Amino acid sequence: MALILTPLPGMPSVRVGDDLSELIWQAVQRAGISLQDGDIFVLAQKIVSKAEGRQVNLTSIVPSEEARQLALATGKDPRLVELNLQESSEILRTRPGTIIVEHRLGFVCANAGIDHSNVAGEGNADEEYVLLLPINPDASARQLRTQLEQVSGVRLGVMIIDSHGRAWRLGTVGIAIGLAGVPGVVDLRGRNDLYGYQLRITEVGAADELAAAASLMMGQAAEGTPVIHVRGFPYPLRESSLSELLRPKQEDLFR
Amino acid sequence: MALILTPLPGMPSVRVGDDLSELIWQAVQRAGISLQDGDIFVLAQKIVSKAEGRQVNLTSIVPSEEARQLALATGKDPRLVELNLQESSEILRTRPGTIIVEHRLGFVCANAGIDHSNVAGEGNADEEYVLLLPINPDASARQLRTQLEQVSGVRLGVMIIDSHGRAWRLGTVGIAIGLAGVPGVVDLRGRNDLYGYQLRITEVGAADELAAAASLMMGQAAEGTPVIHVRGFPYPLRESSLSELLRPKQEDLFR
Repeated sequence: MALILTPLPGMPSVRVGDDLSELIWQAVQRAGISLQDGDIFVLAQKIVSKAEGRQVNLTSIVPSEEARQLALATGKDPRLVELNLQESSEILRTRPGTIIVEHRLGFVCANAGIDHSNVAGEGNADEEYVLLLPINPDASARQLRTQLEQVSGVRLGVMIIDSHGRAWRLGTVGIAIGLAGVPGVVDLRGRNDLYGYQLRITEVGAADELAAAASLMMGQAAEGTPVIHVRGFPYPLRESSLSELLRPKQEDLFR
Repeated sequence: MALILTPLPGMPSVRVGDDLSELIWQAVQRAGISLQDGDIFVLAQKIVSKAEGRQVNLTSIVPSEEARQLALATGKDPRLVELNLQESSEILRTRPGTIIVEHRLGFVCANAGIDHSNVAGEGNADEEYVLLLPINPDASARQLRTQLEQVSGVRLGVMIIDSHGRAWRLGTVGIAIGLAGVPGVVDLRGRNDLYGYQLRITEVGAADELAAAASLMMGQAAEGTPVIHVRGFPYPLRESSLSELLRPKQEDLFR
Protein backbone atom coordinates (compact mmCIF):
# COMPACT_ATOMS: atom_id res chain seq x y z
CA MET A 1 0.00 0.00 0.00
CA ALA A 2 1.48 3.33 -1.10
CA LEU A 3 1.05 6.85 0.21
CA ILE A 4 0.11 9.12 -2.68
CA LEU A 5 0.06 12.92 -2.41
CA THR A 6 -1.40 14.79 -5.36
CA PRO A 7 -1.67 18.57 -5.62
CA LEU A 8 -5.28 19.35 -6.44
CA PRO A 9 -5.21 21.10 -9.81
CA GLY A 10 -7.25 24.14 -10.66
CA MET A 11 -7.82 25.69 -7.24
CA PRO A 12 -8.71 29.33 -7.86
CA SER A 13 -7.25 32.24 -5.91
CA VAL A 14 -9.21 32.44 -2.65
CA ARG A 15 -11.03 35.58 -1.51
CA VAL A 16 -12.71 36.66 1.70
CA GLY A 17 -15.95 34.78 2.23
CA ASP A 18 -15.25 32.01 -0.26
CA ASP A 19 -16.66 28.59 0.60
CA LEU A 20 -13.52 26.44 0.54
CA SER A 21 -15.44 23.17 0.57
CA GLU A 22 -17.23 24.26 -2.59
CA LEU A 23 -13.99 25.34 -4.29
CA ILE A 24 -12.33 22.03 -3.36
CA TRP A 25 -15.30 19.92 -4.42
CA GLN A 26 -15.48 21.70 -7.78
CA ALA A 27 -11.76 21.19 -8.32
CA VAL A 28 -12.08 17.51 -7.38
CA GLN A 29 -14.86 17.04 -9.91
CA ARG A 30 -13.03 18.94 -12.64
CA ALA A 31 -9.95 16.80 -12.02
CA GLY A 32 -12.05 13.65 -12.25
CA ILE A 33 -10.86 12.38 -8.84
CA SER A 34 -13.04 9.64 -7.42
CA LEU A 35 -12.83 10.08 -3.65
CA GLN A 36 -12.56 7.04 -1.40
CA ASP A 37 -13.14 6.41 2.29
CA GLY A 38 -10.02 7.45 4.19
CA ASP A 39 -8.83 10.08 1.72
CA ILE A 40 -7.49 13.26 3.27
CA PHE A 41 -7.33 16.86 2.10
CA VAL A 42 -4.43 18.92 3.41
CA LEU A 43 -4.89 22.68 3.10
CA ALA A 44 -2.32 25.45 3.31
CA GLN A 45 -3.15 27.79 6.19
CA LYS A 46 -3.02 30.69 3.80
CA ILE A 47 -6.20 29.88 1.92
CA VAL A 48 -8.15 29.22 5.12
CA SER A 49 -7.01 32.54 6.57
CA LYS A 50 -7.91 34.36 3.37
CA ALA A 51 -11.38 32.84 3.20
CA GLU A 52 -11.90 33.87 6.83
CA GLY A 53 -10.83 37.45 6.14
CA ARG A 54 -7.70 37.35 8.32
CA GLN A 55 -5.88 39.90 6.17
CA VAL A 56 -4.84 42.96 8.13
CA ASN A 57 -3.72 46.24 6.63
CA LEU A 58 -0.70 47.38 8.62
CA THR A 59 -1.68 51.01 8.12
CA SER A 60 -4.64 50.34 10.41
CA ILE A 61 -2.47 49.16 13.34
CA VAL A 62 -1.36 51.48 16.14
CA PRO A 63 1.55 49.88 18.00
CA SER A 64 1.56 49.85 21.79
CA GLU A 65 4.55 51.00 23.85
CA GLU A 66 5.52 47.34 24.39
CA ALA A 67 5.40 46.73 20.65
CA ARG A 68 7.55 49.80 19.96
CA GLN A 69 10.18 48.62 22.43
CA LEU A 70 10.24 45.09 20.99
CA ALA A 71 10.40 46.55 17.48
CA LEU A 72 13.49 48.52 18.45
CA ALA A 73 15.13 45.40 19.89
CA THR A 74 14.37 43.23 16.88
CA GLY A 75 14.48 45.72 14.01
CA LYS A 76 10.96 44.79 12.98
CA ASP A 77 8.04 46.99 11.94
CA PRO A 78 6.32 48.13 15.19
CA ARG A 79 2.89 47.47 13.66
CA LEU A 80 3.87 43.92 12.81
CA VAL A 81 5.23 43.46 16.33
CA GLU A 82 1.92 44.72 17.71
CA LEU A 83 0.13 41.98 15.76
CA ASN A 84 2.68 39.46 17.06
CA LEU A 85 1.79 40.46 20.60
CA GLN A 86 -1.94 40.32 19.94
CA GLU A 87 -1.69 36.86 18.40
CA SER A 88 0.54 35.40 21.13
CA SER A 89 0.22 34.31 24.73
CA GLU A 90 3.94 34.51 25.50
CA ILE A 91 7.22 35.78 24.02
CA LEU A 92 9.87 33.02 24.31
CA ARG A 93 12.94 34.42 22.57
CA THR A 94 13.84 37.41 20.44
CA ARG A 95 16.71 38.30 18.18
CA PRO A 96 17.09 40.72 15.29
CA GLY A 97 14.40 39.90 12.75
CA THR A 98 12.78 37.12 14.76
CA ILE A 99 10.35 36.82 17.65
CA ILE A 100 9.65 33.29 18.88
CA VAL A 101 6.26 33.12 20.56
CA GLU A 102 3.76 30.77 22.04
CA HIS A 103 0.89 31.45 19.70
CA ARG A 104 -2.59 31.87 21.19
CA LEU A 105 -3.39 28.55 19.48
CA GLY A 106 -0.88 26.88 21.81
CA PHE A 107 2.10 26.07 19.61
CA VAL A 108 5.53 27.67 19.55
CA CYS A 109 6.45 29.42 16.31
CA ALA A 110 8.33 32.36 14.85
CA ASN A 111 6.64 35.73 14.30
CA ALA A 112 3.24 34.42 15.39
CA GLY A 113 2.81 32.71 12.04
CA ILE A 114 2.03 36.05 10.41
CA ASP A 115 2.61 35.91 6.70
CA HIS A 116 3.62 38.81 4.50
CA SER A 117 3.89 37.01 1.18
CA ASN A 118 1.08 36.31 -1.22
CA VAL A 119 -1.34 38.63 0.54
CA ALA A 120 -2.82 41.31 -1.64
CA GLY A 121 -5.50 43.72 -0.62
CA GLU A 122 -8.47 43.74 -2.94
CA GLY A 123 -7.24 46.12 -5.60
CA ASN A 124 -4.87 47.91 -3.24
CA ALA A 125 -1.50 46.46 -4.06
CA ASP A 126 0.26 49.44 -2.48
CA GLU A 127 -1.09 48.79 0.95
CA GLU A 128 0.76 46.61 3.36
CA TYR A 129 -1.34 43.58 4.04
CA VAL A 130 -0.33 40.72 6.26
CA LEU A 131 -2.20 37.51 6.97
CA LEU A 132 -2.93 36.16 10.44
CA LEU A 133 -3.50 32.46 11.15
CA PRO A 134 -7.11 31.23 11.12
CA ILE A 135 -9.18 31.99 14.22
CA ASN A 136 -9.67 28.33 15.12
CA PRO A 137 -8.06 25.94 12.64
CA ASP A 138 -9.49 22.82 14.33
CA ALA A 139 -12.99 24.22 13.93
CA SER A 140 -12.31 25.24 10.33
CA ALA A 141 -11.01 21.75 9.55
CA ARG A 142 -14.03 20.12 11.23
CA GLN A 143 -16.45 22.24 9.25
CA LEU A 144 -14.70 21.51 5.96
CA ARG A 145 -14.66 17.82 6.78
CA THR A 146 -18.39 17.78 7.45
CA GLN A 147 -19.16 19.68 4.26
CA LEU A 148 -16.87 17.58 2.07
CA GLU A 149 -18.18 14.33 3.53
CA GLN A 150 -21.73 15.49 2.79
CA VAL A 151 -21.14 16.33 -0.85
CA SER A 152 -18.88 13.34 -1.53
CA GLY A 153 -20.63 10.67 0.47
CA VAL A 154 -17.35 9.19 1.72
CA ARG A 155 -15.48 9.42 5.02
CA LEU A 156 -12.64 11.96 4.78
CA GLY A 157 -9.97 13.66 6.85
CA VAL A 158 -9.09 17.36 6.66
CA MET A 159 -5.94 19.00 7.94
CA ILE A 160 -4.73 22.61 7.88
CA ILE A 161 -0.96 23.09 7.88
CA ASP A 162 1.63 25.81 8.17
CA SER A 163 5.38 25.84 7.58
CA HIS A 164 7.56 26.35 10.66
CA GLY A 165 11.21 26.72 11.48
CA ARG A 166 12.66 24.46 14.15
CA ALA A 167 15.05 24.45 17.05
CA TRP A 168 18.40 22.89 16.12
CA ARG A 169 17.72 22.26 12.42
CA LEU A 170 17.65 24.51 9.38
CA GLY A 171 14.85 24.66 6.86
CA THR A 172 11.14 24.99 7.43
CA VAL A 173 8.87 21.96 7.51
CA GLY A 174 5.12 21.59 7.27
CA ILE A 175 3.30 21.06 10.59
CA ALA A 176 -0.36 20.57 11.47
CA ILE A 177 -2.28 23.51 12.96
CA GLY A 178 -5.82 22.18 12.57
CA LEU A 179 -7.09 18.60 12.47
CA ALA A 180 -10.34 16.86 11.66
CA GLY A 181 -10.29 13.10 11.35
CA VAL A 182 -6.52 12.83 10.94
CA PRO A 183 -5.00 11.42 14.16
CA GLY A 184 -2.51 13.87 15.66
CA VAL A 185 -0.45 11.36 17.60
CA VAL A 186 -0.66 7.62 17.08
CA ASP A 187 0.08 5.50 20.12
CA LEU A 188 1.98 2.33 19.26
CA ARG A 189 2.42 1.34 22.91
CA GLY A 190 2.14 -2.36 23.52
CA ARG A 191 3.16 -3.35 20.03
CA ASN A 192 6.16 -5.60 19.92
CA ASP A 193 8.86 -5.47 17.33
CA LEU A 194 10.07 -8.52 15.43
CA TYR A 195 12.23 -9.68 18.33
CA GLY A 196 9.52 -9.30 20.93
CA TYR A 197 10.87 -6.11 22.47
CA GLN A 198 8.24 -3.62 23.48
CA LEU A 199 8.67 -0.60 21.24
CA ARG A 200 10.27 2.28 23.07
CA ILE A 201 9.17 4.97 20.68
CA THR A 202 5.45 4.71 21.10
CA GLU A 203 4.00 8.06 20.16
CA VAL A 204 4.28 8.92 16.51
CA GLY A 205 3.46 12.45 15.35
CA ALA A 206 1.54 11.06 12.39
CA ALA A 207 -0.29 14.29 11.52
CA ASP A 208 2.93 16.28 11.49
CA GLU A 209 4.60 13.63 9.33
CA LEU A 210 1.74 13.93 6.86
CA ALA A 211 1.89 17.74 7.09
CA ALA A 212 5.57 17.66 6.16
CA ALA A 213 4.83 15.42 3.19
CA ALA A 214 2.03 17.66 1.97
CA SER A 215 4.11 20.79 2.48
CA LEU A 216 6.78 19.29 0.24
CA MET A 217 4.22 19.12 -2.57
CA MET A 218 2.84 22.63 -1.97
CA GLY A 219 6.20 24.30 -2.34
CA GLN A 220 6.28 27.75 -0.86
CA ALA A 221 4.52 29.69 -3.59
CA ALA A 222 1.57 27.95 -2.08
CA GLU A 223 -1.17 29.85 -3.84
CA GLY A 224 -0.66 27.58 -6.82
CA THR A 225 -1.23 24.25 -5.08
CA PRO A 226 -2.64 25.02 -1.65
CA VAL A 227 -4.63 21.76 -1.43
CA ILE A 228 -3.10 18.29 -1.46
CA HIS A 229 -5.17 15.16 -1.90
CA VAL A 230 -3.81 12.23 0.11
CA ARG A 231 -4.53 8.56 -0.40
CA GLY A 232 -3.04 5.71 1.60
CA PHE A 233 -2.55 7.32 5.02
CA PRO A 234 -1.59 4.27 7.07
CA TYR A 235 -3.72 4.86 10.20
CA PRO A 236 -7.49 4.88 10.66
CA LEU A 237 -9.23 8.26 10.75
CA ARG A 238 -10.81 9.28 14.07
CA GLU A 239 -11.87 12.41 15.95
CA SER A 240 -8.78 14.52 16.56
CA SER A 241 -7.49 17.97 17.43
CA LEU A 242 -4.29 20.03 17.44
CA SER A 243 -4.02 19.67 21.21
CA GLU A 244 -2.75 16.10 20.79
CA LEU A 245 0.43 17.50 19.26
CA LEU A 246 1.20 20.19 21.83
CA ARG A 247 3.77 19.30 24.46
CA PRO A 248 2.59 20.54 27.85
CA LYS A 249 4.67 23.55 28.84
CA GLN A 250 5.74 22.05 32.16
CA GLU A 251 7.08 18.96 30.38
CA ASP A 252 9.03 20.95 27.81
CA LEU A 253 12.79 21.16 28.35
CA PHE A 254 13.18 23.90 25.74
CA ARG A 255 10.90 26.69 26.90
CA MET B 1 2.71 15.24 -10.56
CA ALA B 2 2.20 13.14 -7.44
CA LEU B 3 4.58 12.11 -4.67
CA ILE B 4 4.36 8.34 -4.24
CA LEU B 5 5.92 6.52 -1.29
CA THR B 6 5.90 2.74 -1.47
CA PRO B 7 7.29 0.42 1.19
CA LEU B 8 9.69 -1.93 -0.57
CA PRO B 9 8.28 -5.41 -0.05
CA GLY B 10 10.33 -8.45 0.85
CA MET B 11 13.33 -6.86 2.56
CA PRO B 12 14.92 -9.60 4.66
CA SER B 13 16.09 -9.15 8.24
CA VAL B 14 19.50 -7.47 8.04
CA ARG B 15 22.64 -8.93 9.65
CA VAL B 16 26.14 -7.66 10.28
CA GLY B 17 28.09 -7.42 7.06
CA ASP B 18 25.10 -7.58 4.74
CA ASP B 19 25.40 -5.61 1.52
CA LEU B 20 22.33 -3.38 1.71
CA SER B 21 22.54 -2.30 -1.91
CA GLU B 22 22.34 -5.94 -2.95
CA LEU B 23 19.38 -6.65 -0.63
CA ILE B 24 17.56 -3.57 -1.93
CA TRP B 25 18.30 -4.31 -5.57
CA GLN B 26 17.09 -7.91 -5.19
CA ALA B 27 13.90 -6.69 -3.48
CA VAL B 28 13.35 -4.13 -6.25
CA GLN B 29 13.67 -6.81 -8.91
CA ARG B 30 11.41 -9.26 -7.06
CA ALA B 31 8.80 -6.52 -6.71
CA GLY B 32 9.05 -5.76 -10.42
CA ILE B 33 9.74 -2.07 -9.81
CA SER B 34 11.17 -0.29 -12.85
CA LEU B 35 13.42 2.42 -11.43
CA GLN B 36 13.45 5.87 -13.01
CA ASP B 37 15.84 8.81 -12.91
CA GLY B 38 15.09 10.84 -9.78
CA ASP B 39 13.72 7.96 -7.70
CA ILE B 40 14.84 7.93 -4.08
CA PHE B 41 15.34 5.17 -1.52
CA VAL B 42 14.77 6.13 2.09
CA LEU B 43 16.29 3.70 4.62
CA ALA B 44 15.57 3.31 8.31
CA GLN B 45 18.72 3.98 10.33
CA LYS B 46 18.25 0.65 12.01
CA ILE B 47 19.13 -1.53 9.03
CA VAL B 48 22.19 0.56 8.18
CA SER B 49 23.44 0.31 11.76
CA LYS B 50 22.85 -3.43 11.79
CA ALA B 51 24.70 -4.01 8.54
CA GLU B 52 27.58 -1.95 9.94
CA GLY B 53 27.72 -4.00 13.13
CA ARG B 54 26.73 -1.17 15.46
CA GLN B 55 25.07 -3.52 17.95
CA VAL B 56 26.58 -3.27 21.41
CA ASN B 57 26.08 -5.76 24.20
CA LEU B 58 25.50 -3.75 27.36
CA THR B 59 27.23 -6.44 29.43
CA SER B 60 30.48 -5.38 27.74
CA ILE B 61 30.22 -1.74 28.86
CA VAL B 62 31.92 -0.42 32.00
CA PRO B 63 30.35 2.90 32.98
CA SER B 64 32.58 5.82 33.92
CA GLU B 65 32.06 7.84 37.07
CA GLU B 66 30.37 10.57 35.00
CA ALA B 67 28.02 7.98 33.52
CA ARG B 68 27.17 6.61 36.96
CA GLN B 69 26.31 10.09 38.24
CA LEU B 70 24.15 10.87 35.23
CA ALA B 71 22.48 7.47 35.54
CA LEU B 72 21.54 8.29 39.13
CA ALA B 73 20.11 11.65 38.07
CA THR B 74 18.06 10.23 35.21
CA GLY B 75 17.17 6.75 36.48
CA LYS B 76 18.76 5.19 33.40
CA ASP B 77 21.04 2.16 33.08
CA PRO B 78 24.62 3.41 33.75
CA ARG B 79 25.96 1.33 30.84
CA LEU B 80 23.45 2.94 28.49
CA VAL B 81 24.39 6.37 29.83
CA GLU B 82 28.05 5.54 29.18
CA LEU B 83 27.19 4.87 25.53
CA ASN B 84 25.21 8.12 25.45
CA LEU B 85 28.32 9.99 26.57
CA GLN B 86 30.55 8.19 24.09
CA GLU B 87 28.21 8.97 21.20
CA SER B 88 27.72 12.63 22.12
CA SER B 89 29.69 15.84 22.00
CA GLU B 90 27.54 17.69 24.57
CA ILE B 91 24.76 17.07 27.08
CA LEU B 92 22.04 19.72 26.63
CA ARG B 93 19.30 18.75 29.08
CA THR B 94 18.46 15.86 31.35
CA ARG B 95 15.38 14.72 33.16
CA PRO B 96 14.26 11.35 34.51
CA GLY B 97 14.39 8.87 31.66
CA THR B 98 15.74 11.31 29.06
CA ILE B 99 19.09 12.79 28.13
CA ILE B 100 19.07 15.36 25.34
CA VAL B 101 22.44 15.50 23.62
CA GLU B 102 24.26 16.98 20.71
CA HIS B 103 25.18 13.78 18.92
CA ARG B 104 28.72 13.44 17.57
CA LEU B 105 27.06 13.61 14.12
CA GLY B 106 26.04 17.20 14.93
CA PHE B 107 22.30 17.03 15.51
CA VAL B 108 20.38 17.37 18.76
CA CYS B 109 18.44 14.29 19.83
CA ALA B 110 17.27 12.29 22.82
CA ASN B 111 19.39 9.47 24.25
CA ALA B 112 22.00 9.75 21.50
CA GLY B 113 19.69 7.96 19.10
CA ILE B 114 20.49 4.64 20.77
CA ASP B 115 17.82 2.09 20.07
CA HIS B 116 16.86 -0.77 22.33
CA SER B 117 14.06 -2.25 20.25
CA ASN B 118 14.41 -4.76 17.44
CA VAL B 119 18.04 -5.51 18.23
CA ALA B 120 18.80 -9.14 18.83
CA GLY B 121 22.19 -10.60 19.32
CA GLU B 122 22.96 -13.43 16.97
CA GLY B 123 21.37 -16.31 18.88
CA ASN B 124 21.71 -14.58 22.24
CA ALA B 125 18.25 -13.22 22.91
CA ASP B 126 18.98 -13.02 26.65
CA GLU B 127 21.77 -10.54 26.27
CA GLU B 128 21.08 -6.87 26.30
CA TYR B 129 21.88 -5.48 22.91
CA VAL B 130 21.42 -1.89 21.89
CA LEU B 131 22.02 -0.31 18.52
CA LEU B 132 24.12 2.82 17.92
CA LEU B 133 23.61 5.13 14.95
CA PRO B 134 25.72 4.46 11.85
CA ILE B 135 29.34 5.68 11.98
CA ASN B 136 28.91 8.14 9.12
CA PRO B 137 25.40 8.12 7.63
CA ASP B 138 26.31 10.55 4.82
CA ALA B 139 29.10 8.22 3.71
CA SER B 140 26.83 5.18 3.98
CA ALA B 141 24.18 6.93 1.90
CA ARG B 142 26.74 7.98 -0.70
CA GLN B 143 28.08 4.45 -1.02
CA LEU B 144 24.60 2.98 -1.38
CA ARG B 145 23.74 5.60 -3.95
CA THR B 146 26.79 4.78 -6.05
CA GLN B 147 26.14 1.04 -5.87
CA LEU B 148 22.42 1.32 -6.65
CA GLU B 149 23.06 3.70 -9.55
CA GLN B 150 25.59 1.23 -10.94
CA VAL B 151 23.29 -1.78 -10.88
CA SER B 152 20.19 0.11 -11.99
CA GLY B 153 21.69 2.44 -14.58
CA VAL B 154 19.53 5.37 -13.42
CA ARG B 155 20.25 8.45 -11.30
CA LEU B 156 18.96 7.92 -7.75
CA GLY B 157 18.89 9.56 -4.33
CA VAL B 158 19.49 7.75 -1.04
CA MET B 159 18.58 8.99 2.40
CA ILE B 160 18.97 7.46 5.87
CA ILE B 161 16.44 8.56 8.47
CA ASP B 162 15.74 8.26 12.16
CA SER B 163 12.72 9.15 14.26
CA HIS B 164 13.17 12.03 16.72
CA GLY B 165 11.17 13.79 19.37
CA ARG B 166 10.90 17.55 19.18
CA ALA B 167 10.90 20.64 21.34
CA TRP B 168 7.38 21.97 21.89
CA ARG B 169 5.44 19.26 20.08
CA LEU B 170 4.50 15.69 20.99
CA GLY B 171 5.06 12.67 18.81
CA THR B 172 8.20 11.59 17.01
CA VAL B 173 8.77 12.45 13.35
CA GLY B 174 11.19 11.10 10.79
CA ILE B 175 14.26 13.26 10.14
CA ALA B 176 17.24 12.87 7.81
CA ILE B 177 20.57 11.74 9.29
CA GLY B 178 22.39 10.87 6.07
CA LEU B 179 21.95 12.26 2.56
CA ALA B 180 23.18 11.40 -0.90
CA GLY B 181 21.59 13.17 -3.83
CA VAL B 182 18.55 14.38 -1.91
CA PRO B 183 18.86 18.13 -1.27
CA GLY B 184 18.83 18.87 2.47
CA VAL B 185 17.63 22.45 2.28
CA VAL B 186 16.11 23.97 -0.83
CA ASP B 187 16.62 27.69 -1.23
CA LEU B 188 13.62 29.43 -2.75
CA ARG B 189 15.13 32.88 -2.32
CA GLY B 190 14.38 35.25 -5.14
CA ARG B 191 11.22 33.51 -6.20
CA ASN B 192 8.19 35.73 -6.15
CA ASP B 193 4.75 34.66 -5.12
CA LEU B 194 1.66 35.26 -7.20
CA TYR B 195 1.42 38.88 -6.06
CA GLY B 196 5.05 39.68 -6.72
CA TYR B 197 6.14 39.65 -3.08
CA GLN B 198 9.53 38.12 -2.48
CA LEU B 199 8.94 34.95 -0.51
CA ARG B 200 9.90 35.38 3.13
CA ILE B 201 10.24 31.71 3.90
CA THR B 202 13.07 30.83 1.62
CA GLU B 203 14.76 27.78 3.05
CA VAL B 204 12.69 24.63 2.94
CA GLY B 205 13.86 21.56 4.86
CA ALA B 206 12.98 19.35 1.92
CA ALA B 207 14.96 16.29 3.06
CA ASP B 208 13.33 16.37 6.50
CA GLU B 209 9.90 16.74 4.91
CA LEU B 210 10.60 13.65 2.83
CA ALA B 211 12.01 11.86 5.89
CA ALA B 212 8.77 12.51 7.77
CA ALA B 213 6.73 11.19 4.87
CA ALA B 214 8.83 8.04 4.60
CA SER B 215 8.77 7.50 8.35
CA LEU B 216 4.98 7.55 8.24
CA MET B 217 5.09 4.58 5.88
CA MET B 218 7.69 2.67 7.89
CA GLY B 219 5.68 2.73 11.07
CA GLN B 220 7.78 2.01 14.12
CA ALA B 221 8.11 -1.74 13.86
CA ALA B 222 10.51 -0.71 11.15
CA GLU B 223 12.12 -4.06 10.51
CA GLY B 224 9.13 -4.95 8.36
CA THR B 225 9.35 -2.05 5.92
CA PRO B 226 12.70 -0.35 6.51
CA VAL B 227 13.07 0.84 2.91
CA ILE B 228 10.69 3.22 1.18
CA HIS B 229 10.78 3.80 -2.56
CA VAL B 230 9.95 7.40 -3.48
CA ARG B 231 8.85 8.72 -6.84
CA GLY B 232 7.92 12.31 -7.63
CA PHE B 233 10.19 14.24 -5.23
CA PRO B 234 9.61 17.79 -6.48
CA TYR B 235 13.20 19.09 -6.50
CA PRO B 236 16.20 18.07 -8.61
CA LEU B 237 18.73 15.71 -7.05
CA ARG B 238 22.21 17.12 -6.37
CA GLU B 239 25.21 16.50 -4.12
CA SER B 240 24.12 16.95 -0.52
CA SER B 241 24.94 16.23 3.11
CA LEU B 242 23.43 16.30 6.57
CA SER B 243 25.33 19.47 7.41
CA GLU B 244 22.88 21.52 5.33
CA LEU B 245 20.20 20.74 7.90
CA LEU B 246 22.15 21.55 11.06
CA ARG B 247 21.53 24.97 12.57
CA PRO B 248 24.87 26.46 13.67
CA LYS B 249 25.03 26.36 17.47
CA GLN B 250 25.71 30.07 17.79
CA GLU B 251 22.56 30.87 15.77
CA ASP B 252 20.35 28.56 17.80
CA LEU B 253 18.06 30.23 20.34
CA PHE B 254 17.21 26.91 22.01
CA ARG B 255 20.56 25.48 23.05
